[in-house]
Amino acid sequence: MNLAIIGAGRIAQVHAAAAGRDPRIVVRYVSDIRNDAAEKLAAPHGATVVAIDTVFEDQAVDAVLIASSTATHAEFLERAARAGKAVLCEKPIALDIERTRAAVDTINANPVACALGFNRRHDTQFDALKCALGEGRIGDLETLTIISRDPAPPPIEYVKGSGGLFYDMMIHDFDTARWLFDEPVSTVSAFGSVQVDSAIGEAGDVDTAMVTLVTESGRLCHIQNSRRAVYGYDQRIEAFGSRGMLQAVNETETRLRETTEAGQTDEPPKHFYLERYGAAYASELGDLYDAWVDDSQPKATHEDGYQALRLAAAATQSLREGRVVAMDEIG
Amino acid sequence: MNLAIIGAGRIAQVHAAAAGRDPRIVVRYVSDIRNDAAEKLAAPHGATVVAIDTVFEDQAVDAVLIASSTATHAEFLERAARAGKAVLCEKPIALDIERTRAAVDTINANPVACALGFNRRHDTQFDALKCALGEGRIGDLETLTIISRDPAPPPIEYVKGSGGLFYDMMIHDFDTARWLFDEPVSTVSAFGSVQVDSAIGEAGDVDTAMVTLVTESGRLCHIQNSRRAVYGYDQRIEAFGSRGMLQAVNETETRLRETTEAGQTDEPPKHFYLERYGAAYASELGDLYDAWVDDSQPKATHEDGYQALRLAAAATQSLREGRVVAMDEIG
Amino acid sequence: MNLAIIGAGRIAQVHAAAAGRDPRIVVRYVSDIRNDAAEKLAAPHGATVVAIDTVFEDQAVDAVLIASSTATHAEFLERAARAGKAVLCEKPIALDIERTRAAVDTINANPVACALGFNRRHDTQFDALKCALGEGRIGDLETLTIISRDPAPPPIEYVKGSGGLFYDMMIHDFDTARWLFDEPVSTVSAFGSVQVDSAIGEAGDVDTAMVTLVTESGRLCHIQNSRRAVYGYDQRIEAFGSRGMLQAVNETETRLRETTEAGQTDEPPKHFYLERYGAAYASELGDLYDAWVDDSQPKATHEDGYQALRLAAAATQSLREGRVVAMDEIG
Amino acid sequence: MNLAIIGAGRIAQVHAAAAGRDPRIVVRYVSDIRNDAAEKLAAPHGATVVAIDTVFEDQAVDAVLIASSTATHAEFLERAARAGKAVLCEKPIALDIERTRAAVDTINANPVACALGFNRRHDTQFDALKCALGEGRIGDLETLTIISRDPAPPPIEYVKGSGGLFYDMMIHDFDTARWLFDEPVSTVSAFGSVQVDSAIGEAGDVDTAMVTLVTESGRLCHIQNSRRAVYGYDQRIEAFGSRGMLQAVNETETRLRETTEAGQTDEPPKHFYLERYGAAYASELGDLYDAWVDDSQPKATHEDGYQALRLAAAATQSLREGRVVAMDEIG
Repeated sequence: MNLAIIGAGRIAQVHAAAAGRDPRIVVRYVSDIRNDAAEKLAAPHGATVVAIDTVFEDQAVDAVLIASSTATHAEFLERAARAGKAVLCEKPIALDIERTRAAVDTINANPVACALGFNRRHDTQFDALKCALGEGRIGDLETLTIISRDPAPPPIEYVKGSGGLFYDMMIHDFDTARWLFDEPVSTVSAFGSVQVDSAIGEAGDVDTAMVTLVTESGRLCHIQNSRRAVYGYDQRIEAFGSRGMLQAVNETETRLRETTEAGQTDEPPKHFYLERYGAAYASELGDLYDAWVDDSQPKATHEDGYQALRLAAAATQSLREGRVVAMDEIG
Repeated sequence: MNLAIIGAGRIAQVHAAAAGRDPRIVVRYVSDIRNDAAEKLAAPHGATVVAIDTVFEDQAVDAVLIASSTATHAEFLERAARAGKAVLCEKPIALDIERTRAAVDTINANPVACALGFNRRHDTQFDALKCALGEGRIGDLETLTIISRDPAPPPIEYVKGSGGLFYDMMIHDFDTARWLFDEPVSTVSAFGSVQVDSAIGEAGDVDTAMVTLVTESGRLCHIQNSRRAVYGYDQRIEAFGSRGMLQAVNETETRLRETTEAGQTDEPPKHFYLERYGAAYASELGDLYDAWVDDSQPKATHEDGYQALRLAAAATQSLREGRVVAMDEIG
Repeated sequence: MNLAIIGAGRIAQVHAAAAGRDPRIVVRYVSDIRNDAAEKLAAPHGATVVAIDTVFEDQAVDAVLIASSTATHAEFLERAARAGKAVLCEKPIALDIERTRAAVDTINANPVACALGFNRRHDTQFDALKCALGEGRIGDLETLTIISRDPAPPPIEYVKGSGGLFYDMMIHDFDTARWLFDEPVSTVSAFGSVQVDSAIGEAGDVDTAMVTLVTESGRLCHIQNSRRAVYGYDQRIEAFGSRGMLQAVNETETRLRETTEAGQTDEPPKHFYLERYGAAYASELGDLYDAWVDDSQPKATHEDGYQALRLAAAATQSLREGRVVAMDEIG
Repeated sequence: MNLAIIGAGRIAQVHAAAAGRDPRIVVRYVSDIRNDAAEKLAAPHGATVVAIDTVFEDQAVDAVLIASSTATHAEFLERAARAGKAVLCEKPIALDIERTRAAVDTINANPVACALGFNRRHDTQFDALKCALGEGRIGDLETLTIISRDPAPPPIEYVKGSGGLFYDMMIHDFDTARWLFDEPVSTVSAFGSVQVDSAIGEAGDVDTAMVTLVTESGRLCHIQNSRRAVYGYDQRIEAFGSRGMLQAVNETETRLRETTEAGQTDEPPKHFYLERYGAAYASELGDLYDAWVDDSQPKATHEDGYQALRLAAAATQSLREGRVVAMDEIG
């Protein structure tokens, strides 16, 4: 599968490295507004740096990876779809629901294998939990508790352009909840405050948040986010059901346990997403490859991107207005 | 300390057994509307079964344990206070806020050592967590996550008279949140559904619930209840703060770990409250003794009972009306 | 059961406290060569301090607890047996095998309920492991791994009079192995060195030791002792069998887990034997009571005391001579 | 680095796959007495199947991987050394000490980068333990406890040709002990029995074994092997020292924890060596590459192979003769 990579930042690098280890995928082109960065990314793959139009016009390109800035995602997705390329797009499609819906409609009108970069669906732990649910190991799923904490807040400039915590960070958890419930959400209630960094508050955002989702059949989900956990990247899910409970706990770099006067100590959780989701990123490209070859659905599609964005919009509105928001209020 | 016990049901038995092991406490009287039950409880202690008036009129009685039915708590509390007896009262004081407030005012006007039966404050694990917070081991407390699940629902007749899940079950967690935050709650938002037993729904109650509390300074608390966890009594607290996280995990009967083809298995959590909070019940009476001797505050007082009840009322209203309820709306 | 306590040291105090909480047992007499200590122990029980002869001559005494110095155990055991008293004796019966055998023969000739203070048999964790073995939960038992480490070495004077690590410390583990295997040991091989405190070496003892036991049917047991584990009292057993593994892991005071930059930390193990085996000491007296009332066998008897001593003797000889010692070489 | 692979069995396949993922290594030749197997291994790498002489004679070959049958290791090692090739050889060099010594001498006379396939030294957990020891995290190392159990015995024909449990299985643990102690062993004492499969006993071997090593300074090591652990591949090390304890516990495929009426269950350990040491095999080749490029020592060398073999010989003799064997008795 000949791949063109749009963007040359950190996530693009992660995907490129994964592509390099997969003998089925060839990185053919790299395109980025910063030529230097593009060259640096292209070099180890023997890829060519090209202008953006080449990505979509060259018949030799089978698939496009969109890892450029958020503002460009929707347009590049639409161009890829119209050009008949398989595509893996980093989340979100756009911060605006109407723009996102338009892109999704365009893809539906030009059906291609379209994968959204919801890396949790590719994580070993969460995937095992999903499988165990499917096997009925805890009977009927009744509640989900999703805890997601970053080790440290992003730069304040990033925060300002991110659309806020619900669009930038919790969107992953919204997708996870949808994926695990496999049922529409009916209401969203969000609570948040600034406890980590007052600059985040001054930028109009929160750094600590709790959201409750209620599904149409009455199942309940708690999502909790913090922008700063001093001990590392805290990524856990607890699924509770009629016959038991499943918990996906944090990964650690090693299984070394140290016992001293201070206690019995396991390592802290892995530091951040590159450590925790490294294998998941690689799996995303493999998933796109499979969808491209088999003409099948990727694990997370553009529709999933759209639905997660609606939940982020609902949470944002709920927090702003201090009330429960019904999903049928959201475009 | 000469103790009179009002009530002869299961909780009264637990307290009486604890009194029997404490050389500082003498069970002098037992009073219950069912004479048989009272005799049975009194016998091993060499206690006398008496009419209810004797409990309050006999000068030899130093302290009264109120473990009769909920409807009688407020009146007996007031009589105990007027009679100058120390008193340990099972929660709640009443299901009605005005009635509770009146009782609390009466006690304040007739100051006695008055302890409320919030056993979590006496639990080894939760007390250790409270101490660790006080020592600043996780810096500033930012969020609390309280999970509390019963092994099986109570009889439906009990449910009907209980005031509902928030008054009967989550009231303990409301008190725990107040105790750990040590700061007033400003809003309460409740979500619930019937996923365990439809009879509970027909009785107008929910069996699965999530509540979000926001404190005046913006700290957040998630409380999750279920009436049925097949694996036992699930009683956990996670406190997250600026320098780390504290988790009070479930107790097990033994520390035996079994590894077979099925996996590496620790025992399930202790079965129910008698197993988990057995030592806590004993501690409650010791705490009352200390307050009586030292003329000090018990760990949980009638004011705490009143405040927890206000939170239960707010949660009930929030669920009914589908909205965020501010605590200043509540009497 | 009227109990006379011989000795007034730390272990006597632990047993006396347990007796005080058991309504079936009355501490009637205390006898010790130090009158002050005896008075102090007797007072809270309303017991009388008596000369040693009274313990054995007074018909009102049903049972005798021997917690005096090791050198007196054998004689007092014999006197108790001849006087027809039930008896609980701290280990060892004597440091000398012939003397021990003579005492055991005397007890056999004057059969009374005779319990040896092997507290591990009364420990919640180890008892659960024994039960699980009996239920066949790991099929046929094939190997045992027993790790037993003290938090700190005893005073050097104590070491000098103790008979050495195998007689004083590992004797408990020898008994545990015999109890769990329920089969005679055929060979003993001991290895040891001085790594903790050179004074222990100068006293002719080791502070770190490993012993291998082979049973008659070829099952294998590893025992490991150290006189100093900075993290507390390390008391673990691993039983491996044809269908799996059972591990009795260390107890901690609480179940509080702290996660910080330093890692995910559980408490260290309980500090020492008073903390870990407090409940086991209480259980020993209850076990003696049951044996006295039912005319049954205590969990650990004088014969068990004798057999454990033979293993200690074999280990001591093995270490001294640098060779495998067959149990049929030992008296 | 142009690599020639000798052998085309399972271990050769594991190494070849690792080579395929390492861009610095080219699999150029494959040689095996079974031509079919060689072709199959060579194909995905575009490698050529050659006669054994080509491996050593072709100047283009930089490094040789010896993964053929044990009986051929010594000769191929010598030929590789004489030809100046870097070499990674599976353990053992030979089952015979003199033959091994001769090969080691030949390599020393023709110095090349020579790595022995002791995969434990490349395991994430064990390497982390080694590093922590080096950092002094538990002070002075005093005892090691190494537990190593296979999920199921090998075919009986394999057992017959393997040299026995000490040469085939425990040799890894002998190397681990040497590596962690970094100090010569002075005595070896072995105990073993047939508890898993009587056919193993009929073949003159044991299937369950315990060995005690004593180092020159008196540090102690317990090694325990079983040929069958129904729950998977049990690979643990416990290091105990003057300031604490380090435990490398088993890896699991996922971090999913399931709580049901049966208990709180983590997955069983990874199934066998391909699962547990997959990454370690890959690391072995990278380590050889580094030694080849930097003219440095691999993590485990031919001398380590020789010393581990001496320990296996000592253990075999100890078990046969029922006595402690001093290492200076061994060739």
